[in-house]
Amino acid sequence: MSPTSYRVDALQYCNWSEKIFRQMRDGSVDAVHVTIAYHENFRETVANIEQWNEYFEQFPHLIFHGITGDDVRLARDTNRTAIFYGFQNPSPIEDDIRLVEILHSLGVRFMQLSYNNQSMLATGCYEAEDPGITRMGREVIEEMNRVGLVVDMSHSAERSTLEAIQISARPIVITHANPAFWAPALRNKSNTVLEALAQTGGMMGFSLYPHHLKDKGACTLQSFCEMVAECAGLMGVDNIGLGSDLCQDQPDSVVEWMRVGRWTKKIDFGEGSANNAGFPPMPDWFQGNHHFGNVEQGLREVGFTAEDTAKVMGNNWLRFFDQNFGPED
Amino acid sequence: MSPTSYRVDALQYCNWSEKIFRQMRDGSVDAVHVTIAYHENFRETVANIEQWNEYFEQFPHLIFHGITGDDVRLARDTNRTAIFYGFQNPSPIEDDIRLVEILHSLGVRFMQLSYNNQSMLATGCYEAEDPGITRMGREVIEEMNRVGLVVDMSHSAERSTLEAIQISARPIVITHANPAFWAPALRNKSNTVLEALAQTGGMMGFSLYPHHLKDKGACTLQSFCEMVAECAGLMGVDNIGLGSDLCQDQPDSVVEWMRVGRWTKKIDFGEGSANNAGFPPMPDWFQGNHHFGNVEQGLREVGFTAEDTAKVMGNNWLRFFDQNFGPED
Repeated sequence: MSPTSYRVDALQYCNWSEKIFRQMRDGSVDAVHVTIAYHENFRETVANIEQWNEYFEQFPHLIFHGITGDDVRLARDTNRTAIFYGFQNPSPIEDDIRLVEILHSLGVRFMQLSYNNQSMLATGCYEAEDPGITRMGREVIEEMNRVGLVVDMSHSAERSTLEAIQISARPIVITHANPAFWAPALRNKSNTVLEALAQTGGMMGFSLYPHHLKDKGACTLQSFCEMVAECAGLMGVDNIGLGSDLCQDQPDSVVEWMRVGRWTKKIDFGEGSANNAGFPPMPDWFQGNHHFGNVEQGLREVGFTAEDTAKVMGNNWLRFFDQNFGPED
Repeated sequence: MSPTSYRVDALQYCNWSEKIFRQMRDGSVDAVHVTIAYHENFRETVANIEQWNEYFEQFPHLIFHGITGDDVRLARDTNRTAIFYGFQNPSPIEDDIRLVEILHSLGVRFMQLSYNNQSMLATGCYEAEDPGITRMGREVIEEMNRVGLVVDMSHSAERSTLEAIQISARPIVITHANPAFWAPALRNKSNTVLEALAQTGGMMGFSLYPHHLKDKGACTLQSFCEMVAECAGLMGVDNIGLGSDLCQDQPDSVVEWMRVGRWTKKIDFGEGSANNAGFPPMPDWFQGNHHFGNVEQGLREVGFTAEDTAKVMGNNWLRFFDQNFGPED
């Protein structure tokens, strides 16, 4: 008998609602890593956790706060979705390394060392120069390793990413991006990064955000799944999963907050452009959580076995969660 | 065979050091409820938790952060002391009821609804008027009941205390005070309060702070233990324990912070007076954690059985921890 096939999405930032939580159930999604901070400071991040506590009180039959890998299993057993917290920027720890443990105690499980810009820890993918991991960055990586807060380099620049892979004593992740060989974009990753990630036991989550896709919203399911298969060849089938970057039902003001935060008074278009400034339209085969079945079918159709499909759909992420969300044994 | 006798102290606020943590081991103290906020706001309280995380990293062989009753058993099994967090004021939740759950997630287990003054929730024992539990107070008690954060009325005024006992759906506590019949002081409690507390399954922790003792620092061990015996008659032997209010090695500036906080620019002497403004000297039979054995012996000498002595020394608090530190089953 084949093992249970879990469905885990390693990145979403939707305009959360009962509709979306119900779509998670329609798509049999056992766990979602949700972004709870882009540019928020510590207190603002706590306010976002308060908002999630309100959702958990309102919709206990649909969602609950995930803390460990076992919560993914509990979600499956109770027909709910486990929600795991993460940051796309280190802004919530401000200048205080001890906030790493505080935020881990509040259930945060992933933190990007930088978003698109230079942070106090690492460089973002839109900077002209990448001086690598900073002095504080090395300290924070060590502290994250100690408590079990996973280093995520999805938005970081190449040198910083490669250094983080080397400096971190525990495997790191890119929760949401694609290979640059398939869709050239500053946010997508070189084969050098993908290989270094896999060699250290790290995980790559493939994004369904149109700016990361070949042909953007017109990308075909077959092309996406063939890319996943090519990466399985490059990285091994145990180090890949999904990180859809789904931003369902968000108003365009939110993509502006992501890109601009409080760091400029001007508009920055990020992956967009002046005449394409908002959220781009998603592929018709992936409009939301209810469409994860399409991806599973697409993977089977390009030749993944049932077991390998289960790995990509979530079993790899579950193994990673089991090993990396607490202090090392 | 008699059950294990645990030693639990339900209130201390020492100038923490390796010396004091070693004295906890010398006194076989399995668990201590430590005050981590008097007047601190949310962010300042988080900084105090960071300080405790530093202690836990420095002295893992002596202390660890206690979360549940089982951590008291773990402490005994591993020859360490479990440290439980509490507040003597609701200042850490500021004006935000959802910080109750956030702080419970960070491991806080007790919160006084007021210190000596009126708070947004309840009245302190030094106010001239006590209008009882406020509108926000009722909401916060309900939220504390929901998550398993224990209501502590040690410093509150009588009407507020009696109302909290009635309003709370779960038993409440007075972690550190004594009966007024034995030592009249604004901080000590009437028989009405003691009886209402016991009738609802609440706990009373007897204080060894000189201002709460008959004859202050000259109080005899026998007098203290006879008072405990009298309370056992009044309240039953299952609803009493210790809450020493030990403030070892603190400079007098700290008692000023406790009393004055930021609420006045003048000096308030609280339980002291202008010519006795600092910390009062402790009884010679209770100078610190290493002296809990004296109290145990004193209880036996005034006639407590071995089983009842074990209840007072910690088994009652452990039962209370087991039942009240999380959501109700």
